[in-house]
Amino acid sequence: MVVVLKAKTSDEVIAKMVERINKMGIRVQVTKGEHQTILGLIGDTKSVDESRLHDEDHVEKVLKIQEPYKLANRDFHPEDTIVEVKGHKIGGGNLTVMAGPCSVETEEQIIEVAKQVKLSGANILRGGAFKPRTSPYNFQGLGLEGLKMMKKASEITGLPIVTEVMSDEDVDIVAEYADILQIGARNMSNFSLLKKVGRTNKAILLKRGMSATVQELLMSAEYIMSEGNKNVILCERGIRTFETYTRNTLDLSLITAVKELSHLPIIIDPSHATGKWKMVEPMSKASIAAGADGLMIEVHNDPQNALCDGPQSLKPEKFHTLMETITKLHSVI
Amino acid sequence: MVVVLKAKTSDEVIAKMVERINKMGIRVQVTKGEHQTILGLIGDTKSVDESRLHDEDHVEKVLKIQEPYKLANRDFHPEDTIVEVKGHKIGGGNLTVMAGPCSVETEEQIIEVAKQVKLSGANILRGGAFKPRTSPYNFQGLGLEGLKMMKKASEITGLPIVTEVMSDEDVDIVAEYADILQIGARNMSNFSLLKKVGRTNKAILLKRGMSATVQELLMSAEYIMSEGNKNVILCERGIRTFETYTRNTLDLSLITAVKELSHLPIIIDPSHATGKWKMVEPMSKASIAAGADGLMIEVHNDPQNALCDGPQSLKPEKFHTLMETITKLHSVI
Amino acid sequence: MVVVLKAKTSDEVIAKMVERINKMGIRVQVTKGEHQTILGLIGDTKSVDESRLHDEDHVEKVLKIQEPYKLANRDFHPEDTIVEVKGHKIGGGNLTVMAGPCSVETEEQIIEVAKQVKLSGANILRGGAFKPRTSPYNFQGLGLEGLKMMKKASEITGLPIVTEVMSDEDVDIVAEYADILQIGARNMSNFSLLKKVGRTNKAILLKRGMSATVQELLMSAEYIMSEGNKNVILCERGIRTFETYTRNTLDLSLITAVKELSHLPIIIDPSHATGKWKMVEPMSKASIAAGADGLMIEVHNDPQNALCDGPQSLKPEKFHTLMETITKLHSVI
Amino acid sequence: MVVVLKAKTSDEVIAKMVERINKMGIRVQVTKGEHQTILGLIGDTKSVDESRLHDEDHVEKVLKIQEPYKLANRDFHPEDTIVEVKGHKIGGGNLTVMAGPCSVETEEQIIEVAKQVKLSGANILRGGAFKPRTSPYNFQGLGLEGLKMMKKASEITGLPIVTEVMSDEDVDIVAEYADILQIGARNMSNFSLLKKVGRTNKAILLKRGMSATVQELLMSAEYIMSEGNKNVILCERGIRTFETYTRNTLDLSLITAVKELSHLPIIIDPSHATGKWKMVEPMSKASIAAGADGLMIEVHNDPQNALCDGPQSLKPEKFHTLMETITKLHSVI
Repeated sequence: MVVVLKAKTSDEVIAKMVERINKMGIRVQVTKGEHQTILGLIGDTKSVDESRLHDEDHVEKVLKIQEPYKLANRDFHPEDTIVEVKGHKIGGGNLTVMAGPCSVETEEQIIEVAKQVKLSGANILRGGAFKPRTSPYNFQGLGLEGLKMMKKASEITGLPIVTEVMSDEDVDIVAEYADILQIGARNMSNFSLLKKVGRTNKAILLKRGMSATVQELLMSAEYIMSEGNKNVILCERGIRTFETYTRNTLDLSLITAVKELSHLPIIIDPSHATGKWKMVEPMSKASIAAGADGLMIEVHNDPQNALCDGPQSLKPEKFHTLMETITKLHSVI
Repeated sequence: MVVVLKAKTSDEVIAKMVERINKMGIRVQVTKGEHQTILGLIGDTKSVDESRLHDEDHVEKVLKIQEPYKLANRDFHPEDTIVEVKGHKIGGGNLTVMAGPCSVETEEQIIEVAKQVKLSGANILRGGAFKPRTSPYNFQGLGLEGLKMMKKASEITGLPIVTEVMSDEDVDIVAEYADILQIGARNMSNFSLLKKVGRTNKAILLKRGMSATVQELLMSAEYIMSEGNKNVILCERGIRTFETYTRNTLDLSLITAVKELSHLPIIIDPSHATGKWKMVEPMSKASIAAGADGLMIEVHNDPQNALCDGPQSLKPEKFHTLMETITKLHSVI
Repeated sequence: MVVVLKAKTSDEVIAKMVERINKMGIRVQVTKGEHQTILGLIGDTKSVDESRLHDEDHVEKVLKIQEPYKLANRDFHPEDTIVEVKGHKIGGGNLTVMAGPCSVETEEQIIEVAKQVKLSGANILRGGAFKPRTSPYNFQGLGLEGLKMMKKASEITGLPIVTEVMSDEDVDIVAEYADILQIGARNMSNFSLLKKVGRTNKAILLKRGMSATVQELLMSAEYIMSEGNKNVILCERGIRTFETYTRNTLDLSLITAVKELSHLPIIIDPSHATGKWKMVEPMSKASIAAGADGLMIEVHNDPQNALCDGPQSLKPEKFHTLMETITKLHSVI
Repeated sequence: MVVVLKAKTSDEVIAKMVERINKMGIRVQVTKGEHQTILGLIGDTKSVDESRLHDEDHVEKVLKIQEPYKLANRDFHPEDTIVEVKGHKIGGGNLTVMAGPCSVETEEQIIEVAKQVKLSGANILRGGAFKPRTSPYNFQGLGLEGLKMMKKASEITGLPIVTEVMSDEDVDIVAEYADILQIGARNMSNFSLLKKVGRTNKAILLKRGMSATVQELLMSAEYIMSEGNKNVILCERGIRTFETYTRNTLDLSLITAVKELSHLPIIIDPSHATGKWKMVEPMSKASIAAGADGLMIEVHNDPQNALCDGPQSLKPEKFHTLMETITKLHSVI
């Protein structure tokens, strides 16, 4: 960190500031310019709360130099993290496709969809049992019953399960059934939940919040990792902008940003990002071309009667074609 | 809701659609135009999931007419809701000021600040015990110890307490000490937490999420209210935009929007919105002039050494002057 | 400016960089830390193009310290600028109200509205002759005829005129009729137009672009001022965010930001910001309470038949009441 | 358009509204529901100004059904538009790459870069002569001299020229030298300039504004086309969001949106969107994979000494590799 002092700050004040910062365990290098004095903070500034360096009377600006995350930081962990889930490797050049319905509706439905996406080459079965819905009057998911149905579909097909956990109180029960715990976009900054899943030994799929910067996403990963769980997979699912044609705006430059700043794998969810099934294929291809580690795609055998998010779900046949296209594309890239 | 069909949709298809919608308990009025047929849905469409009306082949657009919230809707509850907390009335023309430090640090600090803000005319003591911090390496609040310290300050001054609850698992313990449970911006769409506080009998201060629309804010209030707790106070604390000079962008037009759409009280938090103590006074005055029901303001007796958010905290003397100004302004407005 | 070098940058490279920067007329102070070397640029860095300091191999970050505008900067011009228009003073504690219809439609209409707003206490007549409309098929304004009608209304009432100029080629003709040239939000970064109006001796009302930061707004003012015209009045008219309930999001914290960073007057346009006449009064009051130098308000004698922006226009009677309210409020503040 | 009336609107009022709308040349279909009456507007509503349908007392909502652009609309022009520039075809499945420096600096530089990008397979030479710079103190481009230098480079290499025109007054002179006139993001809603270039017979490259929706972009194209010039090429160059890691956020879903809504070609500018040369390759690949008609890429033979935008410019060797990659990718897609 660099603290830029206001013009005419006295030597006495500077000495006091240096002393205060030293007490935080940080060394300070003072540079006096013609107009401004600059304090360079030397040491591990990760735990220094930036706001404590401000001082209305004497401080002009506080500038950060280092990224505030450490465990998620590629600088300290140069090689790609590979998260292994029941033998399937996520990250490190492998292509992972998570597919399935927005919500589990019936045992028949989830088993049917699981079989079909497996056949098309998907690696992981997605499906919602606990659903975060904008309205309390909409279908909220089948809960525990849904988990059991997914488990059955998983046993039949051999596909590992990824499903969302929305509450601290549900972490244990969801972890009993799922192979990957999903933290939804709305809970990306639910720090209490992040800590809790950080104490499980399950892989965690962390979705980017609707208005989260890449730095905040990595800080949320850091919350999980700082509790001991290093198996974090990041997921971009669209951010909120002024554009209303698509449900959200898919930010594919996040892929490159994450690859540069972190060693964690990143997958893309074009279904939620666009909200339109017709956009799923082009955005899937773009994701793979940009270097994503995989995709999360909604597939439903009867989108028109889906209990949620029908308009963005692919039918199994379309998903099959998509898989052929992206597998070919991935081998070229 | 209005469903606009694509040109050339056959009568047979239309009949099937009407049948499907009727099964949801909704009546349909069909209008055939020259180019387009429109289905008007009649009845309580609150629980109709919009996505279920889409149909790639036949539906052009689905347009909402009614707001999807009912309990929070002024149409169904024309008079202002007044939330009473230990005899103090929030809403309905009363001016409420919640003041105190970002976090409780020591017993002396919270008691000292409580006495001072009480003296200046504040009605409710704010203070953080469980703190949502972007970094896991920053101070996370004193937790239960902090609650106990606030309680003591409350007993001494008679000021009711508002404090944040971040986790389902903490709701009971926080409810034991606090008079108003705060749902932070990051948890506005933590539906599990909303339902849980909806089952308490405490007043709830619901902060707007960083990228939440007014409709989403009211839907979150609806989540709480649909569990039985009608004592919801809304709070604007700035939204996320491209502007970086202020921490967030304070959206004061929300006050008028809420007054038109809902009967719930709304207060403004200029401290978090701007991140700069110098902006707190002008934005407080603007809030009152725009018709807000109150303010939430950070006050710290030693901002420079505050464990969090010092730069946006007012010193007690400045808070005192602010209270004089806004009290006078409120009586004029 | 501060240039943070990457770890392990050699002394030779550092020496070359210093030499390059010196050639730009800037002195450099080198600080070597344990992990990082920092170059502090000393001198007038206003004309240093930040991008020229980047260097993929050796530079970690370039951090700005000084604001890049000079003529618009309060640091170099501490007292408030007061713009005088036909004897009326804008800025410096005076309250200015610009009122009138979105577009001039007929001579009768503009004269009628001018008389009424004058009677209610408005200081300046607004009205559009050249209109920036999203659709080429919508009414584009009366052009020169509109200017002539406004002139007549101005002569009758004595109110100076503010009207928009959209094109370099129209600057001369608009300057012949108007007292204040308005640069619309869509043209805030039309640098060619900014330079052109900077060469007139008319007052300029510069509206903030829909996604412009406060710094960019001040840089656009700098464009005008650097051509010799110091009579710039800034105007906030709402920014573009994800919120769709209001047409734009009115950012009142801009008032305080401008007051801190610049000496130029700032007025608020609540009509365009909200798009709803019911919000005009509360947002006008909030603006005055926050310290704005004035307001720009749409008034139409027959909003329902207005050729543009009827829904956000006040009827003359409502404007009259508003003027009474804000005049009283301004005297209290 | 559909106008939803408020509950209890009397038959008399409805009759008057219908009469008013009929006068605009539009027929109206009235549907009376239990709670609400809906007016369906039938006919060419393209020129109906939505705001004229609002009426505070009786209208609940005005809902648009048809898109407001016609010439740019795929519904009325199903096959892809192919813009031909000196024999090179843009759109319709062809891959177009526009490459060159941010600004023309010297004759040697532009000729050198032109030769190199030509050799690598670029189809069109880009370069700035009139530069829109945020600061009036930064390099503003060489103007006419720059155009002449580009012309020379064009004559030597045979590459057509694309360059920005910033002002109505410069349209003629720029059109004399350039083959494609670029409208920059800051001028996307400079309607006066759009009309002017719409009256030339040059191809127009229209960049999306920093906060423009897809509909607004197409309306700006409509402005150009409505003046007679149908040779419009759209260009996405990143939108403004809260994310600060990249300069802008590249919105690749725009490609699919444009392909669905319009017949115009769309190319992507990853250099300006990301501001980082390292992101140019992955985002170029993603653009092609998503179906873009081409790319616009900054190439500079000495990025570190470039007079603008060095950090986002590729060196000729890197551009060469990129061309190989995307040519291969394009043939696969």
